[in-house]
Amino acid sequence: MASIIAAALKSWLPVQQNSDFPIQNLPFGVFKTTQSEARMATIIGDTVIDLQQLAKLGLFDDMDLDKTVFSQRYINDFMALGKAKTSAFRLRLAEIFAQDNQAMAQHAELRARALFPLDKVELLLPVKVGDYTDFYSSIEHATNVGTMFRDPDNALLPNWRHLPVGYHGRASSIVVSGTAIHRPKGQQKPNEGNPVFGPSKLLDFELEMAFVIGKENPLGKRVSTAQAEDYIFGLLLFNDWSARDIQKWEYVPLGPFLAKSFASTVSPWVVTLDAFEDMRVEGPEQDPEVLPYLQYEGKKNYNIELEVNLKTASGAEKTICQSNFKYMYWNMAQQLAHHTVNGCNVQVGDLCASGTISGKEPSSYGSMLELSWRGTRPIDMPDGSQRKFLQDGDELSLSGYGYNAEGIRIGFGPCTGKILPALD
Amino acid sequence: MASIIAAALKSWLPVQQNSDFPIQNLPFGVFKTTQSEARMATIIGDTVIDLQQLAKLGLFDDMDLDKTVFSQRYINDFMALGKAKTSAFRLRLAEIFAQDNQAMAQHAELRARALFPLDKVELLLPVKVGDYTDFYSSIEHATNVGTMFRDPDNALLPNWRHLPVGYHGRASSIVVSGTAIHRPKGQQKPNEGNPVFGPSKLLDFELEMAFVIGKENPLGKRVSTAQAEDYIFGLLLFNDWSARDIQKWEYVPLGPFLAKSFASTVSPWVVTLDAFEDMRVEGPEQDPEVLPYLQYEGKKNYNIELEVNLKTASGAEKTICQSNFKYMYWNMAQQLAHHTVNGCNVQVGDLCASGTISGKEPSSYGSMLELSWRGTRPIDMPDGSQRKFLQDGDELSLSGYGYNAEGIRIGFGPCTGKILPALD
Repeated sequence: MASIIAAALKSWLPVQQNSDFPIQNLPFGVFKTTQSEARMATIIGDTVIDLQQLAKLGLFDDMDLDKTVFSQRYINDFMALGKAKTSAFRLRLAEIFAQDNQAMAQHAELRARALFPLDKVELLLPVKVGDYTDFYSSIEHATNVGTMFRDPDNALLPNWRHLPVGYHGRASSIVVSGTAIHRPKGQQKPNEGNPVFGPSKLLDFELEMAFVIGKENPLGKRVSTAQAEDYIFGLLLFNDWSARDIQKWEYVPLGPFLAKSFASTVSPWVVTLDAFEDMRVEGPEQDPEVLPYLQYEGKKNYNIELEVNLKTASGAEKTICQSNFKYMYWNMAQQLAHHTVNGCNVQVGDLCASGTISGKEPSSYGSMLELSWRGTRPIDMPDGSQRKFLQDGDELSLSGYGYNAEGIRIGFGPCTGKILPALD
Repeated sequence: MASIIAAALKSWLPVQQNSDFPIQNLPFGVFKTTQSEARMATIIGDTVIDLQQLAKLGLFDDMDLDKTVFSQRYINDFMALGKAKTSAFRLRLAEIFAQDNQAMAQHAELRARALFPLDKVELLLPVKVGDYTDFYSSIEHATNVGTMFRDPDNALLPNWRHLPVGYHGRASSIVVSGTAIHRPKGQQKPNEGNPVFGPSKLLDFELEMAFVIGKENPLGKRVSTAQAEDYIFGLLLFNDWSARDIQKWEYVPLGPFLAKSFASTVSPWVVTLDAFEDMRVEGPEQDPEVLPYLQYEGKKNYNIELEVNLKTASGAEKTICQSNFKYMYWNMAQQLAHHTVNGCNVQVGDLCASGTISGKEPSSYGSMLELSWRGTRPIDMPDGSQRKFLQDGDELSLSGYGYNAEGIRIGFGPCTGKILPALD
């Protein structure tokens, strides 16, 4: 059922070197323009392709597809068609835009109606998120946090290697890349005295990936590790903004709440698992052996390079983190198998985020908390300023990409957010 | 904007002594029959009133209302009309069914089309839940749990009296009263050795109430304690089923996850805040004084009696808990003000549950964990059996009701669930 697009295929649409969106990607998103309402799209290079228009022009008339899905505000109904249909649809798109198919390329009116320069459209949140779950699946991140806040000799809690620790997050405040983030206010506890209320002083990001559920699993059933990929439609970049001072005071005993729920940012394009097929790699060895329901076969990790760029209000920029999705100790199949092993249902549009993705090297740590080691090792910026945590005016950008068998880059486009001062 | 129905009003529909549904209640729900699709309803006595039919018959034609809301699968669109309209609508219902208005009472055909005996319909989950939040706002419950699992001398954690501790829960697995609950499976950690996988041995209930958001608050704004009740459409009974053995192993450091996400049960009728207007009482004194954003004026607690009934497979029944919603340390206005103080948005259909509602007396403890004091004080059942936690075949039923100024009972109807064996 996978729809792998030939690794060397070229499109008649222009694709710059190191674009995240060659014809092998064909991710799905939603856009609008000043003239028209939200509708589904894909992208090649810097050209946004209006799928509603292509459907109206009859390019999918021979396919067994409900064409109304392309006119929806979110891609949920499209995902719910099932992978048999969505994979076939993606192959059809590759045919239409392949270099040797000049039917549309030569058709100026058709191109004018269906193709938009990326900088002329507004990309919208692509998925209507039902439930959002955040895991904690990078062993380096969990070890760093445990070392800083608990005990370096027992940094990992006893359950960590036995199950993918996770918790429920807030779905309503998930926003699309480019949405400005106001510094949250909340309770913080000074070392001495009573708690105080005010803007967070320790505002942080978390470099994460998220998978999007494309197939419903009913209440009372479980999804095995072998079945899991059939339920995962695709991936997003995910920035789990975090207010460390609010978190520290509120989180016992029931976990993070207001420290996270003010906003999370996702990339605008959902990249299918198929597009990352060439990036599969072995995961790290799991020791001790996990329980049978968490065991799996095959390569379930993905070699996707991740970067975090910080730009200050003065315009000074620096790549502050280089990490990789392949570092995950617990893979997505294990996360979904664990999530449903108690009979919990999942629905189309649910998101499961990875947790902060850190590697072994300090340069690969996926949060300011770890990069600045709790503020003890400030980051030097090119404009002479230093960062322990995020300041007002800072713009943070996540990126993620891998290379297919022909060395062609496939990625997400940027996942950005600028920090604005706290609101009254 | 409140729509208080005269405390002594009577209906031409029969209402038994101690019914939860006198004409002063008029809650909202959704039902279907073997002949027809889901649609909105209210209830008086044991008579379910089809609001779609009343609308079709023209009874609301003079009101400025979108009548399509009554044909929806959930009451969300109705709530989103706003309290000005929904309160006026409730007063209209009281007029139609008041004893001195015989227009419908005398109209056999009209009655036949719009009125259904409760036992001939299926009540459905009334609200499409977006995000579900669970608080931890009973000081007696938090103290009991802290005493059992941590330190009797420091049972409450330092943050507890300064903020209403809460966390995000799983929305997808919220089910309506009457839905059978399969015992969940999951990882448990014996005192010695490795974790094991199997059916939970420590299955519990939690007696809670939940409020339903009826008005959107956009991202970046906060709702003050004074504004909060305008955002709260009504209340539900809420059973937060919990697997204590799964919880104990998984919950550090990010909170409960699979121990709760297999199911939560709500009552089928959303009772408006207006219907409980006469039950307002002062809350407990809060010491130390809370931060300004959590301060409030007026009576924000509600005198709503709560009971839990346990019926074994043999049919033996016992009321195992008598508690009261008025015991809450943190009230709903404070919970919502806290929830939004960081700019977190709330949407129509979001649920906020109270956390387990326990009182001072052991007979008022709202969970098996507390009632049996961690299994050390088993509950004697009338059939000679004992309960530390719930057994397969047990049926649990929550009920809740208060009395208006005329001593008329207003409640929710039962919120039940039967425990079935774990699925393969």
